[in-house]
Amino acid sequence: MANDLLNVKVLRINLSTGEIKREKIDLELVRLYLGGRGLASKILYDEIDPAIDPLSPENKLIFANGLLTGTSVPTGGRYMVVTKGPLTGTIASSNSGGFFGAELRKAGWSMVIVEGKAEKPVYISIKDDDVQIKDANHLWGKTTDITTDELIEEFGDKRARVACIGPAGENLVKFAAIMNDKSRAAGRTGVGAVMGSKNLKAIVVRGSENINVMDKAAFMEAVKSKVDIIRKNPITGEGLPKLGTKVLDSIINQSGLYPTKNFQFGTFEYTEEVNGEALVNKGYLVDNKACYACPIGCGRDVVLPNGRKGEGPEYESGWAFGADCGVEDLIAVSDANFMCNELGLDTISAGGTIAAAMEMYERGYLPKEDLGNGPELRFGSSESLLYYLKKIAYREGIGDKLAEGSYRFCQAYGHSELSMSVKKQEMPAYDPRGAQGHGLEYATSNRGGCHVRGYMISPEVLGVPEKLDPQSLEGKAGWVKIFQDLTAVIDSAGLCLFSSFALSADDYTELINAGTGFNFTTDDVLKIGERIWNLERKFNLEAGISPEEDKLPNRFKEPLPDGAQKGSFSHVEELLPKYYEARGWNSDGTIPEEKLKELKIA
Amino acid sequence: MANDLLNVKVLRINLSTGEIKREKIDLELVRLYLGGRGLASKILYDEIDPAIDPLSPENKLIFANGLLTGTSVPTGGRYMVVTKGPLTGTIASSNSGGFFGAELRKAGWSMVIVEGKAEKPVYISIKDDDVQIKDANHLWGKTTDITTDELIEEFGDKRARVACIGPAGENLVKFAAIMNDKSRAAGRTGVGAVMGSKNLKAIVVRGSENINVMDKAAFMEAVKSKVDIIRKNPITGEGLPKLGTKVLDSIINQSGLYPTKNFQFGTFEYTEEVNGEALVNKGYLVDNKACYACPIGCGRDVVLPNGRKGEGPEYESGWAFGADCGVEDLIAVSDANFMCNELGLDTISAGGTIAAAMEMYERGYLPKEDLGNGPELRFGSSESLLYYLKKIAYREGIGDKLAEGSYRFCQAYGHSELSMSVKKQEMPAYDPRGAQGHGLEYATSNRGGCHVRGYMISPEVLGVPEKLDPQSLEGKAGWVKIFQDLTAVIDSAGLCLFSSFALSADDYTELINAGTGFNFTTDDVLKIGERIWNLERKFNLEAGISPEEDKLPNRFKEPLPDGAQKGSFSHVEELLPKYYEARGWNSDGTIPEEKLKELKIA
Repeated sequence: MANDLLNVKVLRINLSTGEIKREKIDLELVRLYLGGRGLASKILYDEIDPAIDPLSPENKLIFANGLLTGTSVPTGGRYMVVTKGPLTGTIASSNSGGFFGAELRKAGWSMVIVEGKAEKPVYISIKDDDVQIKDANHLWGKTTDITTDELIEEFGDKRARVACIGPAGENLVKFAAIMNDKSRAAGRTGVGAVMGSKNLKAIVVRGSENINVMDKAAFMEAVKSKVDIIRKNPITGEGLPKLGTKVLDSIINQSGLYPTKNFQFGTFEYTEEVNGEALVNKGYLVDNKACYACPIGCGRDVVLPNGRKGEGPEYESGWAFGADCGVEDLIAVSDANFMCNELGLDTISAGGTIAAAMEMYERGYLPKEDLGNGPELRFGSSESLLYYLKKIAYREGIGDKLAEGSYRFCQAYGHSELSMSVKKQEMPAYDPRGAQGHGLEYATSNRGGCHVRGYMISPEVLGVPEKLDPQSLEGKAGWVKIFQDLTAVIDSAGLCLFSSFALSADDYTELINAGTGFNFTTDDVLKIGERIWNLERKFNLEAGISPEEDKLPNRFKEPLPDGAQKGSFSHVEELLPKYYEARGWNSDGTIPEEKLKELKIA
Repeated sequence: MANDLLNVKVLRINLSTGEIKREKIDLELVRLYLGGRGLASKILYDEIDPAIDPLSPENKLIFANGLLTGTSVPTGGRYMVVTKGPLTGTIASSNSGGFFGAELRKAGWSMVIVEGKAEKPVYISIKDDDVQIKDANHLWGKTTDITTDELIEEFGDKRARVACIGPAGENLVKFAAIMNDKSRAAGRTGVGAVMGSKNLKAIVVRGSENINVMDKAAFMEAVKSKVDIIRKNPITGEGLPKLGTKVLDSIINQSGLYPTKNFQFGTFEYTEEVNGEALVNKGYLVDNKACYACPIGCGRDVVLPNGRKGEGPEYESGWAFGADCGVEDLIAVSDANFMCNELGLDTISAGGTIAAAMEMYERGYLPKEDLGNGPELRFGSSESLLYYLKKIAYREGIGDKLAEGSYRFCQAYGHSELSMSVKKQEMPAYDPRGAQGHGLEYATSNRGGCHVRGYMISPEVLGVPEKLDPQSLEGKAGWVKIFQDLTAVIDSAGLCLFSSFALSADDYTELINAGTGFNFTTDDVLKIGERIWNLERKFNLEAGISPEEDKLPNRFKEPLPDGAQKGSFSHVEELLPKYYEARGWNSDGTIPEEKLKELKIA
């Protein structure tokens, strides 16, 4: 039986010329980068000049499945969008679940590389080997939910899956998302804007292949044992299924690092009105929802009292529109999430940008007349969420400025210090003063402010795999390095990061070997992660992202004014040299040649 | 040519027996009561014992067109629902526009008298003379918008019109409305609950007749001249078309009688966020909407940023969910209005009940545990609007108590003084301390707290037909009497009360005479109004509504704490004896025999 996992096939579609090529990836590259984020980053790095304008036709947009995506490996439904991101200027790798990736894999494709720019709006239709570029004029301007419904209707097979952009991507909003299966997002770093810049509205795909692995029996054995581990784990077996990611609201608030009102505070007075428990108890949650091959099912199927439906809010989204904007209205918070899905906006950056604008407004830096006739941007204004989200997606009025993200927005008014971002990307729902390792992770993430490049909240707050003192600096640089490298592996293998609450590096190694027949040790696998990390770093350095950008906003030099960690401030400047050292980098944050050689990058 | 206006035909439908009778009204009754509210009240008074339980099968539910409804008379699209109301225990006459009434008239019917109670849910189908009682099991439980769509589909003629109840009426919410044309409401006094108590889900109607008037040319001449007057009037020709009834928000707020936070204050800090101008300037208003034969078009077609659509909010609805609940979120306020339309709830009583519950909660009279898991009922909680509206309509949790209206709700907790109601019906959007005549009108309205039984705001605040000092008591009793009597005429003729901003009593007399061939003087017509008023009063007295109920909540004995009329308090106790005197009533508020004889009631 053929081992499909080593038969990595790529569709290369040039929208400028209309050319469609079918290629196969060299096995050596698979060994070095696995797939997904790693492999696509390697291709992007090799094929584009990192210094290009991310919204130019020279940029490429790669939809990349992980090595194991589409198999029965638990949580194995992930695909990644890799490109140069317009929000950060860094390499972007935006990860999503749902069913689109697995469907693409079943159509035979591990990767779709989109090049150039179509003259007019188009979409890509993939039915196994039948691949076509089709006119999308009738879909342009439509929201992602309607686009998805209409494309599936047009495709003529209800089992087809769609990834698409909404109005935000079309209008090149710097934090536009690519949405698949309506409510799953490759959300961060503005990958949707790159798609929009190429006049590519959507990819619709339907596949009919089975995916053969090396040794089916052995693979299923490994899968079964990992599913068991996941089901028995208190977080993945109980907490996430019951409350979704919003299990975190109360935990993080009680731990004093729940960023409130644009990170001015570390606790939110009204957490109980908007937390995961409230979503259940108020009766808004109607069902759990699981992605492809997922035994966890953290997705939330929600119906609001006004009949508005959708998936979410996740912890990050709920926080971004809730505590970060000071809003206690869980209906408005949830609806803001739905709107982001429909319009194709990243929730974290959208909420963070509105929160920053609220602080700007309250401090008098943003004049009322600039709001047009919009609601006053006061913290707590539930109306502002829905109002300005729409303005952003359509770049109307002040929405045009907000669509640039909080950093450029605040900078335009002379107050970039109020943008709670790293490398111009808005930070997620953990105040870095409350978890020193996590703060270091923000500062060094290769795609800017981000929690899913090395989730140090896990040891520093949740105690997984062991409890670390969040304020201690001891060993944190090494922890961050390992977490970053392991995350690169998980992403590139095509599993969900949430699996790592239960699974260890050894488990991932076992799954990869069982599927492919490779004989990696865990150290080999972590080395792959390190390779990916360094490759991304190299891209960024060549893109002109200086190591001086490995930093946090100045606000975090001030002590937390409230909560369980009152008085704490960020020690990221102390940690950074240790991190560079742990990484084997030069003290100025650049990568020495020998490290590149060691990792077989140079 | 026949004069259809004098050929007043009635459908009498007994839901207990299934019997359908066709009757004709004696012309003398038309001369005495015109039609609509007047004529239906006379029939109700003659046919039921005023002391019955309003939700028993003994109550009757009368859908009554005005005398001129369905003709080309400007704003002539009104019908009324007359019954004994479950909220107040008084005679109820709830007035609605749209197209349903005119369609019923074109089907040949001036009135539908519904008696008894169906065993199972039914609806009434009327196609000219083809009248049927049909099964409505498949519609029971559905919202009014869906019910309307499905019934029109089932009826097989897109031009059909529907009046129906939503879940609130089915669940006997004491302030359930009857909705027609989806977003027009016979809203007040709980007529929807009476419909629900009879297991009557809807009436669908389609008519094909033309309505012949006495002298078509003369009638058209009169119509044309009145349309001209309406078009040239600054309120009906400009203010209402431009901003709808929400033109009033800023005017009433600046005048200091904009009730805020359950009538604790007379001004709302955030009026500019929720007023008529904001609805336009924020871009939520997409179009004006006019009822049948209306040259004003005050209806608001609104689309919110989240895609929710509907008609409204009107001034009263916007205020009830806005200032009265302290909510500044115009999206939530509008959506609450849409939800009331869908669920079939009266907006004024719904908002007033939630506002009262908010004050109860903030004062500590309503324990948190009684909220179940619902949002905290703080003033300003936008989430509470949508959350508790749904709970009320379905009588879930505390919604079951709230569904009884603010008076019974507050009384159940021992604090009836916090219900801002008259005769158990919630007062509308004018603090009676800011307009003494209007306060007297509230206290004496035959259907409890209500602004459309004698809209004294017109002279006391708007200066129409002339400006009166709102704090002066001089002559106010007489003004209220005339306004109440004239309003009864306008309702019974089938015109919209808004026409009275432009038209005078003489104008209405001219229209009535032109249509019918009657030779009424204006005094004759006002005497008809007085007759109707006294008949309603007689009903209420016999229903056990004591004249002691002609009063306002004690709050209005305290001075207004803010705004343009700070320090003012209600002088209704001084005005009441003068009003009784102006009415020719006994000093105890009962009606002397000679007055009844003079009015040909007894």
